[in-house]
Amino acid sequence: MSGSTFGNIFRVTTWGESHGKALGAVIDGVPAGMELSEADIQKELDRRKPGQSSVTTARAEDDRCEILSGLFEGRTTGTPISVIVYNKDHHSADYSDIAECYRPGHADYTYDCKYGYRDYRGGGRSSGRETIGRVIAGALAKKILSYVGTSFVTYTKAIGPVVVEDIHNEEALDIINSNDLYMPDAGKAEEAMKYLESVMTLGDSAGGVVECVISNVPAGLGDPVFEKLDANLAKAILSIGAVKAFEIGDGCAAATSKGSENNDEFHRSGLRSNHCGGVLGGISCGSPIIIRAHIKPTPSISMYQNTVNKNGEEIKIKIKGRHDPVIVPRAVVVVESMAAIAIADALLSGMTSRIDNIEKLYK
Amino acid sequence: MSGSTFGNIFRVTTWGESHGKALGAVIDGVPAGMELSEADIQKELDRRKPGQSSVTTARAEDDRCEILSGLFEGRTTGTPISVIVYNKDHHSADYSDIAECYRPGHADYTYDCKYGYRDYRGGGRSSGRETIGRVIAGALAKKILSYVGTSFVTYTKAIGPVVVEDIHNEEALDIINSNDLYMPDAGKAEEAMKYLESVMTLGDSAGGVVECVISNVPAGLGDPVFEKLDANLAKAILSIGAVKAFEIGDGCAAATSKGSENNDEFHRSGLRSNHCGGVLGGISCGSPIIIRAHIKPTPSISMYQNTVNKNGEEIKIKIKGRHDPVIVPRAVVVVESMAAIAIADALLSGMTSRIDNIEKLYK
Amino acid sequence: MSGSTFGNIFRVTTWGESHGKALGAVIDGVPAGMELSEADIQKELDRRKPGQSSVTTARAEDDRCEILSGLFEGRTTGTPISVIVYNKDHHSADYSDIAECYRPGHADYTYDCKYGYRDYRGGGRSSGRETIGRVIAGALAKKILSYVGTSFVTYTKAIGPVVVEDIHNEEALDIINSNDLYMPDAGKAEEAMKYLESVMTLGDSAGGVVECVISNVPAGLGDPVFEKLDANLAKAILSIGAVKAFEIGDGCAAATSKGSENNDEFHRSGLRSNHCGGVLGGISCGSPIIIRAHIKPTPSISMYQNTVNKNGEEIKIKIKGRHDPVIVPRAVVVVESMAAIAIADALLSGMTSRIDNIEKLYK
Amino acid sequence: MSGSTFGNIFRVTTWGESHGKALGAVIDGVPAGMELSEADIQKELDRRKPGQSSVTTARAEDDRCEILSGLFEGRTTGTPISVIVYNKDHHSADYSDIAECYRPGHADYTYDCKYGYRDYRGGGRSSGRETIGRVIAGALAKKILSYVGTSFVTYTKAIGPVVVEDIHNEEALDIINSNDLYMPDAGKAEEAMKYLESVMTLGDSAGGVVECVISNVPAGLGDPVFEKLDANLAKAILSIGAVKAFEIGDGCAAATSKGSENNDEFHRSGLRSNHCGGVLGGISCGSPIIIRAHIKPTPSISMYQNTVNKNGEEIKIKIKGRHDPVIVPRAVVVVESMAAIAIADALLSGMTSRIDNIEKLYK
Repeated sequence: MSGSTFGNIFRVTTWGESHGKALGAVIDGVPAGMELSEADIQKELDRRKPGQSSVTTARAEDDRCEILSGLFEGRTTGTPISVIVYNKDHHSADYSDIAECYRPGHADYTYDCKYGYRDYRGGGRSSGRETIGRVIAGALAKKILSYVGTSFVTYTKAIGPVVVEDIHNEEALDIINSNDLYMPDAGKAEEAMKYLESVMTLGDSAGGVVECVISNVPAGLGDPVFEKLDANLAKAILSIGAVKAFEIGDGCAAATSKGSENNDEFHRSGLRSNHCGGVLGGISCGSPIIIRAHIKPTPSISMYQNTVNKNGEEIKIKIKGRHDPVIVPRAVVVVESMAAIAIADALLSGMTSRIDNIEKLYK
Repeated sequence: MSGSTFGNIFRVTTWGESHGKALGAVIDGVPAGMELSEADIQKELDRRKPGQSSVTTARAEDDRCEILSGLFEGRTTGTPISVIVYNKDHHSADYSDIAECYRPGHADYTYDCKYGYRDYRGGGRSSGRETIGRVIAGALAKKILSYVGTSFVTYTKAIGPVVVEDIHNEEALDIINSNDLYMPDAGKAEEAMKYLESVMTLGDSAGGVVECVISNVPAGLGDPVFEKLDANLAKAILSIGAVKAFEIGDGCAAATSKGSENNDEFHRSGLRSNHCGGVLGGISCGSPIIIRAHIKPTPSISMYQNTVNKNGEEIKIKIKGRHDPVIVPRAVVVVESMAAIAIADALLSGMTSRIDNIEKLYK
Repeated sequence: MSGSTFGNIFRVTTWGESHGKALGAVIDGVPAGMELSEADIQKELDRRKPGQSSVTTARAEDDRCEILSGLFEGRTTGTPISVIVYNKDHHSADYSDIAECYRPGHADYTYDCKYGYRDYRGGGRSSGRETIGRVIAGALAKKILSYVGTSFVTYTKAIGPVVVEDIHNEEALDIINSNDLYMPDAGKAEEAMKYLESVMTLGDSAGGVVECVISNVPAGLGDPVFEKLDANLAKAILSIGAVKAFEIGDGCAAATSKGSENNDEFHRSGLRSNHCGGVLGGISCGSPIIIRAHIKPTPSISMYQNTVNKNGEEIKIKIKGRHDPVIVPRAVVVVESMAAIAIADALLSGMTSRIDNIEKLYK
Repeated sequence: MSGSTFGNIFRVTTWGESHGKALGAVIDGVPAGMELSEADIQKELDRRKPGQSSVTTARAEDDRCEILSGLFEGRTTGTPISVIVYNKDHHSADYSDIAECYRPGHADYTYDCKYGYRDYRGGGRSSGRETIGRVIAGALAKKILSYVGTSFVTYTKAIGPVVVEDIHNEEALDIINSNDLYMPDAGKAEEAMKYLESVMTLGDSAGGVVECVISNVPAGLGDPVFEKLDANLAKAILSIGAVKAFEIGDGCAAATSKGSENNDEFHRSGLRSNHCGGVLGGISCGSPIIIRAHIKPTPSISMYQNTVNKNGEEIKIKIKGRHDPVIVPRAVVVVESMAAIAIADALLSGMTSRIDNIEKLYK
C-alpha cells in the first residue's frame, strides 16, 4: 500500500529518508491564484530546525526548501507544487552499529517484519526528518486557510511532569516564541528546562504534550460518519511518530463529566463554553478547535538497554551519539502542520456540500 | 465530499438515517471464498441492540440484518456485500419539537451550518443508529481476521468516576458478558450501575471509557507515514460520535514517562513489556494492540438547557422522552468493529508490501 | 480490491447480482438541497428495462426503484442516497448447465481465474443487470448537471453494418424515442431491425455503436494529467461490459487527419468546429462533448460453440433460452448514465480549482 | 481536485512544467526488495528523448534521471521512490507571443477557463514534457511486472494514412528499434517518413496510431464493474495528451462483427482466437492484451490560423519555431508506460482477491 499520501482534495505526498539525497513533498489540489513564495515555507521549516537550544541535537542542517513546480509569477497555477530539501549533514558510518540490532522504542523491528530489511541509516523513512514534508505541506495549508481568516497558536503544554494549566491567549504567542521549549509560560519553561537537564544527566529522555488552538475555522467543515473533522485530525496527529494519544476539547476529561456539565449551551453568537473543542457531530461549529497530542519520551537514550539482533540473539545496546532528550518542542510545528492539512482539505471539500454553491460558482 | 466510506482495500460504505426506511452497509474488497452467514453479523448487531437493561432505551428494534448480495452457497464471491436492516419503530411526531431548535451537544446546529437544513427526525444521519452499518462491516472484518487468528476483547473500562484498573484477561470475557455494562469486574459494574441510577434521578447523563485488546495481530501491518496502523485506528475510533479522545498503549501516560521506562525492551519472543500498545513506528509488532476510546456523556438530558432556535432566538429546552443515561455499553461493539475494520484493511494492504509475495501468489 | 466504486466527490458504489435478492447503488457526495424523487430515477430505469421490443428479452422485471436514505421532504440532505431494486423474475434452475462450463465471450472463465469460483446464476455480478446501479446513479448525476443547464442526447448510431451518418439534432430526440432501437433516423432503424431479424434467424447476434452528445457543459471541467475529463469518460464507458472502443470527437479519424484540418480555430463565441469533441488538454471547452462507445455482439448465441469445462475438457455448448440479438439499444441509457457520472464528478471537483472561489463561498 | 495521481496501490504522482526547474514523479506502493537502478529508468526515458531524427524537435535535453529516495543498497525499501529530471534547455522568451492568445488545438484556452490564468511557457503543465513522469513510473511498473514474466512490444502502427497491417511478432522488435518512427515494417517506415516530409513542407502535421501488445499477463487481473482492467487501460491511455480514441482487441471492428465471429472459443490451453484482446468481463484471461491509441496531429503548425486573444479579439497566429510534424513515435514509450502502470496496479490489487491468499502469506 502507498502510505505517504494524505488528503482527498488538498492532497499531500511526502518522500525521503534521513540519509537519502533529499526529502520533499508534492502538494496537489492547491487552488490556483494563491500567492506563494519559498519564504512562506522556509519560515515554518525554521521552526522545526535542529540546533536551536541546549536540548536539541546539533545536526547542522540548513533545510533550505526549493519550490520546483506549480508556481508562476508568484502565484499557484493549480498544478502540483513540488518542494525539495536536500540532505547535507549525514554520516552513514555513525549508524553502522544499529544495522544489525533492534533499538527499543524504534521502528527497526517492525520495518524488518514488514519489508524483510530496512534502510537503517538514521532510521531511514521512520526518522523525524520525514516531518520536513509535513511542514512544507502545512505551510501551504495554512496559506489557504488564511483566506478565510483561520489562525493557529500551538505550544508545548507539558514537558514530563511540568504542565502549563492556564494559558492567556493574548500574550501567549510572545511567550511561546521567547523560549526554546515553545511553552506559553516563562516560569514553567524554566522549570521544564531544569527537568530536562536532570533527565539528560542520567542519559534518559522525556515526553510531553503539544496543544494547538485554531481560531476562525468556518462553521460547517467536516463530513458526517467517517470523514468527521475530528476523525481526520486524530489520524493526522497520530500519524506523527511518537504520538500516543489525541484529545479534542475536554478530551479524556469528558468521560468523567456529566451531560449537564459537558454540553455547551448555545447563545446568539455561538457556544457559551467550548468543552467540545470546536467540533460537534464531526463538523466544525465556529468555536476554536482545540486539540492535544501526547508524545512519548525520545526512544534514543544513552543507557544500556536489552534487545535482540537480527539473528534473535539477546544483546545489550547503548545508542551512540548525542540525542535530543525531548522531541516535543520540535513537534510543535509538526502538530500545527498536520492540523492545518486536515482542515484545509475539509475546507475545500466543504465547497461541494450544497447545490446552491454550484449555482454561485457556475453561472 | 463523500464521507461515508472507510478503508482502501476492505472498503466500507454505510448509509441510512434514524427514521428512514432502512440502514445498511456495502462492503467491497472482501476476499472471495470466505464462509459467511447472516448469523455472523446478527450476533454482533445483538451486542449493540437497545433495550437490554435499565440503563438503555426501550426502542423496540429487532435490527434483523439481511445479506442482499456478494454471497453464493455460503461463501463470499469477491463482489460487494450489501447488508440491510429495516427501521421499524419510529414515530416522527415525537421529534417535531426539535425541528426548530438546536440541542446542546448534538449535531443539529453544525448540520444546519453545513447543509442549510437537516433531517431532524431522531438526529437523522447523526443518530447512534448510524453505527449499525459499522457493526455490520466490523463483523466481516473480524471474520477476515479470524483467518490469521486475531481475536478481540472489548469492555467498558470506566463509567464516569468508576474505573476498572486491573483486568485479568483469562476470566474477563465471562464477566464482561454477565453484566449489562460490559465491565470486566462484577463489583465495579454494580458500583457503576448505582452511579448511573443517581445520575438518571437528576435527569443527567454520564460518559466513560471503552478499551479494546486485540491479540494475535500479525507483525508488519500498517504503513509508514500517513497510513500508520495507529493513525487509522485513531481515525476509526474518533469517527464514532461522542468519542473525544483516543489512546494507544500507555497513551496520555507516556507523555509523563521517561524513555528508560517507556521503551519496551526486546527479548527472543517479542517485547518484554507493552507500553507501546502493539504498534511501533505505525506498524504492528505482534504484541496485543490496546486502545481506549473516551466517550462523552449522552448529550440528551432531561434538564432544562439554554439554546437558540433557527431564528437565533434564545430559548430553553428540555428534551422529551426517555434517554440512555450513558451510551458507553453500546459503544463497546462499535469500538471493536471500527478497530477490526482498520486492521482488516491493513492486513489486506500488507499483502502487497514485498516483491517475493508476488512470486508466491502468481507462479 | 474494491472495484464497485466510481468517482472522487460524486461517489457511486453499486452492488448486486443477476439472481440475488436485489441490486442497488449508494451515491455519496450529492450536494444537499437538490430536489429528487423516485420518479427521477424510475424514468431512466424504464429506458433500460427489458421487454420493450421484438429484439430484447422478455424477462418480466418491473425494476421498481426505492430510495432508502438521504432524502428529506423531497430534497437531498448531503448524506448517502441508497437506492434499491428488488429482483423478481429469476429461475436459477435455468442456468444450471453453465455452472460447469465457460461460455465464450463471457466472464465465466476469468471470474474463476480470479476468485476460484463464481456465482454462475445469470452471470452473477457480470450480468447486464449490474447496470441498474449505474442508471440509478446516472439519474442523480444528470439532476445535478441540470443546475448548470447541461443536457444529454444519446442514441444508437449503428447496428452491425447499418450506420446513421448525418444526425440533425433538432429533431433527433423525437425520432430516437419513436423506435425500439433508439436510432435517430427512422429509415435506418427499419433497416437495422431487418438486419437483426436476419441475424436472429441464424441464432447469431450483432453489435453496434452508441453516441452521446452532451450540451452546455461549463468550460473548465476536468483536471490536468491523469484526471482529464476525457480520461474519466473513457474509463466510465469502458467499464460497461461489452464496450471495446471509446472515441471522443473525431476519435479514430483524427489519427489520419492533418493538423490544419483537425485543429478547431477559435472565434469570439467559441470553437468554429468541434473535431476535439468538447475537450482540449483534458478540460472541457464549452462546445458539446461527443463520445462514442463501440459495443461487441451479444456473446450469448444459439449456435453450437467449442469451449472447455472446469476440468479442462473440450466440449460443445449451445446456450439455452431466448437471448437479445443485440444489447446496443439497452446500452444507450447506460452510456449516458456513465458519461453523466463522470461529468458530475468533474463539476463538483471544479469548484475547488480557484482560490477566489473559497472567498466567494466562505465569507 | 488533485489530478496528478494514478493508481490505487501502485500509486504514481507526477509534477512539473515544461519550463520549470525540474519534472518528476513520486511512486509509492512499490513492493520492497525489488532490484532497481537509475539505468532501468534512463533506458526508458531515452526512448522518448527529443532530437533523434529529422521529424522530432531539436530541443537539447539530456533528461537524466536521479533517484532521490526509496532505494537502499540497490533494492526498493517499500517507501516512496522520488525521481527527478532537471530541465536545462528552456528559453522563456521564445514563448512570449503566446502568452496572450489561444493556440488552436492546445490547452491554453481551457486552462484559462479553469484557473483564470496559466503558465504559458512551453505549454506549462500541458506540455508533452509532462510525460517524463509517466515514463519514469512506467519503468518501475514494468520492473514489477517482469517478476511474473509480463513483457511489452509497442510500436507505431500508423502515421497518417500509412498503416502497418500485418505484424510478425518474432521479428517486430528488431525492426521497431531500427527506424526513427518505431514502425514494425521497414518499408512502411520509409513510406511514412516520405509522407511526413511532404506534410512538413506545407508547415502542417500528422497523427497516427500506437499499438501495444502485452504478453504473459497473469489471468485474473482487473476487478469487476468500475475497476475493469480495460477501463483502467482506457483511462491510462486517454490521459495522454492528444489521444482521441482507445481500442482493445478488435476494438471498433467488434461493433460490426457477429457473435459467432467475435466470440473467442476456449480450448485446453486458452483462447483459440483473441478478438477480445486479452480481457473478458474486465479481467485478464491470459491471452496477450492488445490495445491501440489513436493520436491526433500535432496542434502546433507553421501555418496561419484564426484564433482569439485573451480579450476576445479575433486574430491570426503562426506558431514560431520548429515543431515536430508528428508526436506518434515519442508517444510509443508513453503508451507502453501507462499500460504498464495500469497493469502493475491490477497485479498488486489482485493479491487480495482470495481468502486463501491471506493464509498463504500470513502463516
